[in-house]
Amino acid sequence: MFEAAEIGHKIDKKTYKAAEPVLREALLSAQFELLAQGRRAVVVLVNGVDGAGKGETVNLFNEWMDPRHIRTEAFDSHHPCTPTDGRPVMWRYWQVLPPKGHIGILFGSWYTEPIVQHALGHEKKHHFAQHLERIRALERMLVDEGVVVLKLWFHMTEAGIKARFKALEADPKTAWRVTADDWERLSHYQDFIGVCAQALRKTNTAQAPWWVIDGSDPAYRALTAGEHLLRALQQATQAQPVPAHVHAAPTPPAPLDGLSLLDHFDHQRRLDKADYKDQLEELQGRLNRLLRSSAMRQRSLVLVFEGMDAAGKGSTIRRITQALDARHYRIIPVAAPNEAERAQPYLWRFWRYLPTWQHTTIFDRSWYGRVLVERVEGFCSEADWTRAYDEINAFEEQLIEAGTVVVKFWLAITQAEQLRRFESRQETPYKMHKITPEDWRNRDKWPLYARAVDDMIERTSTDLAPWHIVASDDKRYSRIEVLRCLCEQVEQTLESSAKNGG
Amino acid sequence: MFEAAEIGHKIDKKTYKAAEPVLREALLSAQFELLAQGRRAVVVLVNGVDGAGKGETVNLFNEWMDPRHIRTEAFDSHHPCTPTDGRPVMWRYWQVLPPKGHIGILFGSWYTEPIVQHALGHEKKHHFAQHLERIRALERMLVDEGVVVLKLWFHMTEAGIKARFKALEADPKTAWRVTADDWERLSHYQDFIGVCAQALRKTNTAQAPWWVIDGSDPAYRALTAGEHLLRALQQATQAQPVPAHVHAAPTPPAPLDGLSLLDHFDHQRRLDKADYKDQLEELQGRLNRLLRSSAMRQRSLVLVFEGMDAAGKGSTIRRITQALDARHYRIIPVAAPNEAERAQPYLWRFWRYLPTWQHTTIFDRSWYGRVLVERVEGFCSEADWTRAYDEINAFEEQLIEAGTVVVKFWLAITQAEQLRRFESRQETPYKMHKITPEDWRNRDKWPLYARAVDDMIERTSTDLAPWHIVASDDKRYSRIEVLRCLCEQVEQTLESSAKNGG
Repeated sequence: MFEAAEIGHKIDKKTYKAAEPVLREALLSAQFELLAQGRRAVVVLVNGVDGAGKGETVNLFNEWMDPRHIRTEAFDSHHPCTPTDGRPVMWRYWQVLPPKGHIGILFGSWYTEPIVQHALGHEKKHHFAQHLERIRALERMLVDEGVVVLKLWFHMTEAGIKARFKALEADPKTAWRVTADDWERLSHYQDFIGVCAQALRKTNTAQAPWWVIDGSDPAYRALTAGEHLLRALQQATQAQPVPAHVHAAPTPPAPLDGLSLLDHFDHQRRLDKADYKDQLEELQGRLNRLLRSSAMRQRSLVLVFEGMDAAGKGSTIRRITQALDARHYRIIPVAAPNEAERAQPYLWRFWRYLPTWQHTTIFDRSWYGRVLVERVEGFCSEADWTRAYDEINAFEEQLIEAGTVVVKFWLAITQAEQLRRFESRQETPYKMHKITPEDWRNRDKWPLYARAVDDMIERTSTDLAPWHIVASDDKRYSRIEVLRCLCEQVEQTLESSAKNGG
Repeated sequence: MFEAAEIGHKIDKKTYKAAEPVLREALLSAQFELLAQGRRAVVVLVNGVDGAGKGETVNLFNEWMDPRHIRTEAFDSHHPCTPTDGRPVMWRYWQVLPPKGHIGILFGSWYTEPIVQHALGHEKKHHFAQHLERIRALERMLVDEGVVVLKLWFHMTEAGIKARFKALEADPKTAWRVTADDWERLSHYQDFIGVCAQALRKTNTAQAPWWVIDGSDPAYRALTAGEHLLRALQQATQAQPVPAHVHAAPTPPAPLDGLSLLDHFDHQRRLDKADYKDQLEELQGRLNRLLRSSAMRQRSLVLVFEGMDAAGKGSTIRRITQALDARHYRIIPVAAPNEAERAQPYLWRFWRYLPTWQHTTIFDRSWYGRVLVERVEGFCSEADWTRAYDEINAFEEQLIEAGTVVVKFWLAITQAEQLRRFESRQETPYKMHKITPEDWRNRDKWPLYARAVDDMIERTSTDLAPWHIVASDDKRYSRIEVLRCLCEQVEQTLESSAKNGG
């Protein structure tokens, strides 16, 4: 890994002085081209050993280019990180992804924490391996979403750093730059570099390779890092914006007997008014007690509601929120993405709204739009939605590992019931705003949506986060069933985590 | 995962009788097209719960198509597996990959063992997760190499299987089909299916998705499985043979100061004859004792020799084998792949020769040909060799985890020394056969090879399997250095595994 960065690379002053202005101009014009196109983002990860010029390089990048369009974020082991408060570890990185057209510099990036934690012995071997796998998956997803991921590693040998420290100490004017802390950290160099080598080996992919840069000579280091950045910017502006995924398997075929999960489903279930009232109050009480229980103190709740138009998502959600403390929940209605959301990888808009401990986020439509409306309407490519199932499962796995209970509902109505509701909306003045020509257009595509729902459930109803398919032609039955499933899933989660001693 | 396979799919006799001959003919002609083209292989994984029709389906596939071009292999938890004798777990699957143009049916495949081991509690949670990650990587590599991977999962509910067993038992003619073992296994259904769901979730990728098939109705099951196979064969014959990898980062740039690892290297080291003889004998003895030590009993050794033409690989290898027991080592000279090797993913030819416990395989050139000669000569695409670094690191990791010590040597000579040796070969009658016009052509490409070597060392000299770059202009120095590095790496491995208690 590090051999080629230990042979004393060097660039003389004259060469540097000639090359620097050329590079600088090229970088600046590439940056403006990136911005003007607004098609792709560039993420630069800056990692390496302390004292190898990471900070100097980041400063240079900001000096060479227009810093207004560069977002620099530090994730340094020596400064406290933003606490995630119960959100998955990766949450903090999603918060700082640059939008299309921009450059994001992640100082320390998603590597510093696992490397430091493992080097200090706080993160076990298999957790470290899992962490690195997750990083691989994140980087792959970013690349698939059209982000250019440039990974720079600044290297120096232990002897090299020692010599630099001694030189600084020898001069009274610079002696202050070397602290006892620096020497202390240097004493762990060998352990640390071993863990780094492992991290680099496991994440050195063709899509997002590491570029190891010899940090000893400032001129060589600066020009080399700048050249890498220039190549990344050129890749972002010259290549296709989001290249197609040519390796995907063919799309799922329809079942041969024409029997679909939703068709087969028993839509006849009903509940009378008196039963409904009794059960509603009981279940709302049960839910409220559950969410206030001490077992939920370091947990959160994510609810996902999907269903055809007029399936009753909104009114069902209201029956749930009646049982919640208004300070502790948030409803996120998901429609077409806005401009800021379109400038980011598709899961970004959902990462923003993940709940902290003791909070609930209710998604009225969700990330499943990718494999429903976006698939059916052709808003994304087949390659995009076919890889989304796996990405969604990995996303939900992260939520669940962070302690979130993820409960997903498909409110299933028949075409006949939808028609009845559409007509009623058109006839009732205070409901008229709820029906648009688009609803009728979507209705024409019912069979396409039904296929998409079948595939979605087959691929994302998992052991960790199963789908609850709830008969919703009768609203009373539907609401009670949703509340019951919700209480049961929360109870089961708490029980099984109590059993496993956490 | 399994919802859509639990709604009672069914196809009536009449429909089946009409559809079956059509499907059969389509399958047969697709199979012959696959064979005629000889461009891609199709691997069919057959997994699922017991009693859901896996065996019947495999029989049907063999009946419908020409079984001479189908290779069926069973990896069943109820039959003992081929022992790997110290080779990595995945070794046994590499042995049965079908060549291009052929269909391989892997009954149980690489999933049965980890699922059963984890369900029985023999494989811990994080080992299971790691195992699944490795499978993901294997399948991705196969797809990248142009193999079509079709994954069929045959599903039935516990109640469905129970009903089938009871029906069989009720009829004296079929009662023998249900054994006490069958009932015993059924009693673990719930635990087993939970582990299966997890395995499916973690390996349901866009490149190699699972197709879950309802196994209850034989007609539905047969036609559905057949249709999936037909689609896979069509994909294999219609799509591009090996689609390009469009997401790869740009190729590595040359160092800005022109300083390369090999140029920088000190080629002047020499050893005189007397020292050489002394040290040679001592090191050979040390190596022999090491390899016969009890600590090596469940270990093996893989040596990799790479270097420019005439670097002295052959003569160095002979100095090593002088210290080995002839029954325990094998030298694999690696040249252009033969026909059987060209019909397989590129790592296949190396998996074949992995040593068992107490054995040594010496590769005279190796899998690194992918990123050396194949890169420089354009024998594979840029996409292929850029992803190879990561695949090679993962391959070596598997070897090392299985207990193999992997020692890699680059024998470094100067261009001047190579010229001297070429000329000497041309002048010496018994060496003439060792020099060909191709050697001279390769020599002209020296700078390209040097770049490829630099990149190779940067990307594959890892914490687990570092490269030893050995100055080889002086053959005596080189041989002694190789023997010393070899002894030291074996000693270090044995010491550190003794420290870690195994």
